[in-house]
Amino acid sequence: MPRSSLDSFFEPRSVAVVGASSTPGKPGRTVIENLIANGFKGRILPVNPRGGKICGFPVSKTIEELPSGIQMGIVMLPAAQTPAAIQECAERGISSVVLAAGGFAEVDHAGEDLQAELKEVIRKTGVRVLGPNTAGHISTPDRFTSSFFPLGKIPNGPISYIAQTGNFTGAMMRSIMSGEHYGVARCIGLGNAVDIDEADVLEFLADDPKTKSIFIYLESLHRPQTFLKIARKVTRTKPVVMLKGGATEGGAKAAMSHTASLGSDDNVLDGALKQAGVVRIDEFTYLFTAAKAAAMMPIPAGNRVGFVSPSGAFIVHISDICHQRTDLVFSKIAAATQKRLEDISPPFINISNPVDVFPSATVNGMEFAWREAMTALLKDPNVDAVVAILILADELGEMKLDFILDLKRRFPEKPIYISFSGDENSNAAAKSFLEPKGVPTFPRIEDPFKVLDILVQCRKSLA
Amino acid sequence: MPRSSLDSFFEPRSVAVVGASSTPGKPGRTVIENLIANGFKGRILPVNPRGGKICGFPVSKTIEELPSGIQMGIVMLPAAQTPAAIQECAERGISSVVLAAGGFAEVDHAGEDLQAELKEVIRKTGVRVLGPNTAGHISTPDRFTSSFFPLGKIPNGPISYIAQTGNFTGAMMRSIMSGEHYGVARCIGLGNAVDIDEADVLEFLADDPKTKSIFIYLESLHRPQTFLKIARKVTRTKPVVMLKGGATEGGAKAAMSHTASLGSDDNVLDGALKQAGVVRIDEFTYLFTAAKAAAMMPIPAGNRVGFVSPSGAFIVHISDICHQRTDLVFSKIAAATQKRLEDISPPFINISNPVDVFPSATVNGMEFAWREAMTALLKDPNVDAVVAILILADELGEMKLDFILDLKRRFPEKPIYISFSGDENSNAAAKSFLEPKGVPTFPRIEDPFKVLDILVQCRKSLA
Repeated sequence: MPRSSLDSFFEPRSVAVVGASSTPGKPGRTVIENLIANGFKGRILPVNPRGGKICGFPVSKTIEELPSGIQMGIVMLPAAQTPAAIQECAERGISSVVLAAGGFAEVDHAGEDLQAELKEVIRKTGVRVLGPNTAGHISTPDRFTSSFFPLGKIPNGPISYIAQTGNFTGAMMRSIMSGEHYGVARCIGLGNAVDIDEADVLEFLADDPKTKSIFIYLESLHRPQTFLKIARKVTRTKPVVMLKGGATEGGAKAAMSHTASLGSDDNVLDGALKQAGVVRIDEFTYLFTAAKAAAMMPIPAGNRVGFVSPSGAFIVHISDICHQRTDLVFSKIAAATQKRLEDISPPFINISNPVDVFPSATVNGMEFAWREAMTALLKDPNVDAVVAILILADELGEMKLDFILDLKRRFPEKPIYISFSGDENSNAAAKSFLEPKGVPTFPRIEDPFKVLDILVQCRKSLA
Repeated sequence: MPRSSLDSFFEPRSVAVVGASSTPGKPGRTVIENLIANGFKGRILPVNPRGGKICGFPVSKTIEELPSGIQMGIVMLPAAQTPAAIQECAERGISSVVLAAGGFAEVDHAGEDLQAELKEVIRKTGVRVLGPNTAGHISTPDRFTSSFFPLGKIPNGPISYIAQTGNFTGAMMRSIMSGEHYGVARCIGLGNAVDIDEADVLEFLADDPKTKSIFIYLESLHRPQTFLKIARKVTRTKPVVMLKGGATEGGAKAAMSHTASLGSDDNVLDGALKQAGVVRIDEFTYLFTAAKAAAMMPIPAGNRVGFVSPSGAFIVHISDICHQRTDLVFSKIAAATQKRLEDISPPFINISNPVDVFPSATVNGMEFAWREAMTALLKDPNVDAVVAILILADELGEMKLDFILDLKRRFPEKPIYISFSGDENSNAAAKSFLEPKGVPTFPRIEDPFKVLDILVQCRKSLA
């Protein structure tokens, strides 16, 4: 059968929850609660042999009993029952299915056989399947999710994730929702990817107007050539950042038992991804910190950074980091910038970029010093992005941070990233103030530079 | 004149504050407020030409007017007045002086001349000087500090810092105090180190019973041979961890204008430090996260880690990190451990270390699964340390964390490090619960492993 597009996965008008449960805390109930919390506008049709009602929705006892015209099925049954369930969904006209169950090729030989059986049903019926062994997917523009992790309302935003793990529609999404201030468009846990794989999803996201940047965690490429071909195209319009798990022998062995996947030779893959414009990262955390920066600020036009530091030691250390591990350079600043920075500093201070702003702060006050130094750098045509490390402590004269929002408005084409040194309660308050208004903050002083470098790499392939 | 020891710097019985101020917010007042807040038991004698009282202490108008028998002077005067002030301190019998002022060799040629003048006075008088261009030092066992950054009461603990920057007795100390739950013994901002240098301080800390671990930020070694000789000895009894700023050309250039110091050839130094047992790190943040681990937990006996993970993806990624960037290995677990882990997991799950604990949690509940997996690994003679990544979210059944404190008591010789995935508010609450009781937590999942690796390196030289 010909493969249908993924549209009905992301914009379903109706969804059957097979294996729905009335018991609070059970995945078969949580998935329905998530749909309600996200304001899903379509029909929700629980299926459970016991019948009755779940969360107010009348329950069908079998898939066969479901009305016709349903687009999607979320199947929460044990592994062994899933091939038959797919067959029944197909017979009822349901063309898209999410399979939550684990217990397939990732565990043992019996699971491998079951996975083969599943593939055969998919081939015969033409039903498109996400999973198995997935925690589901998220599509905020359509107020939809198949996640069975208790999430509640998921914030909408320009970032989309493709993940070969359930994490991203589970605990990590919860971490983003509770700890960060950016939102997602689509988020897909591929699981064992017996049908829908990373290439299918990347193709969908390439043309998805709601997705501005794509972040990927993969342990294997099921169709590397197709994936790379699509990537070459999409990286011209959208940043694509990827962490490849299983890059080492130890990691690859772990990947085998996680998603039953065998990665390709890592060096070959590394070169191919680079050629396709996919920016590879080596730490999990940057899938979130870089996503935050991409969601809130423009992608930097180039690698020339202006850095406002409260400490000479930070300038020394960050210079080392940037020199050793990034393509970033500290801009040679224009004469006008130089003059302005000298004007606001005590006479004996040597001014250059990075700017040690503390001498100016001791003379002019904290807010004036940071504001004027950041403004001068943002005005400079030689500067593509500005990173400032603030020192916040009431006793030093409270710094009102409105000026940073003003700078964001005045220089919308240049990223501004903020980090901190000093009182952690003040830093947390600054984060809560700045991030909902679109200025990303980073607790570790190294991170704004590493994140900027990731997005500078993305810039290279953008047309 | 012969050089006296640094005892009077760390245990002064009386201190003159030259350039004391009655104006709130001025460094010359803040330094006195810090002394009061820390409960300094000795005499505090402000000096200011205006006389009167500052914070209740009678003010001497000149250094000459001070009573005799004062051990230490904190001199808060402009750079140009400092050579004369040292001379006057010497004449008054003050043998230890902290010089806060900047404006010496780090800024210009006039400053270089002034610094030479200062050195000459020091040579002639034999006064021992910390600075100039320092934010002071801290000595919590003696309730003393010369810091003029508003700090308040500084928590006591086993970690000592040597820093060629004012940061550590300023904003970074504030960050530790507000964001972490460990304390310091001694903390020394060397500044331009015209007299007291890193070798002097390391020698003091080597024999200091209050210092259990030493963390160092340096941009240059003033007496590399002496420093390395002392280091070889001290690293046999105490971990010594160092970040060397200016490791690259860019960083070295920045160091020149920060502390007027020219580092040695970095590769040569790298080998020499390694031979001396000093563990070199490459990110500033680890000066605090590794210090926290060293303060709260024993130094690991070896490099064999047990890892309890809520996600296969974390196992894959952390395996990559450990393989590529650390000396850590995941222990081959004993048969009894294997059996126990299998007993608490669903039958189809392949058990090994790292342990994917989620299948067990879905069957047995979160708390049981983590507790039993961590216990099994801690009991295993093949495991030197255990890292667990928790998932905390009320809806998943709240995990009571008392069992972690219990494990700390039962296995006092094995480090336990905690990280998180999931709800950030719960993570923050867990940190506030665990850290005051001596269990370190790390927000980034990569960090417990990187920190463990740092301390495993330290273990190698410990006798």
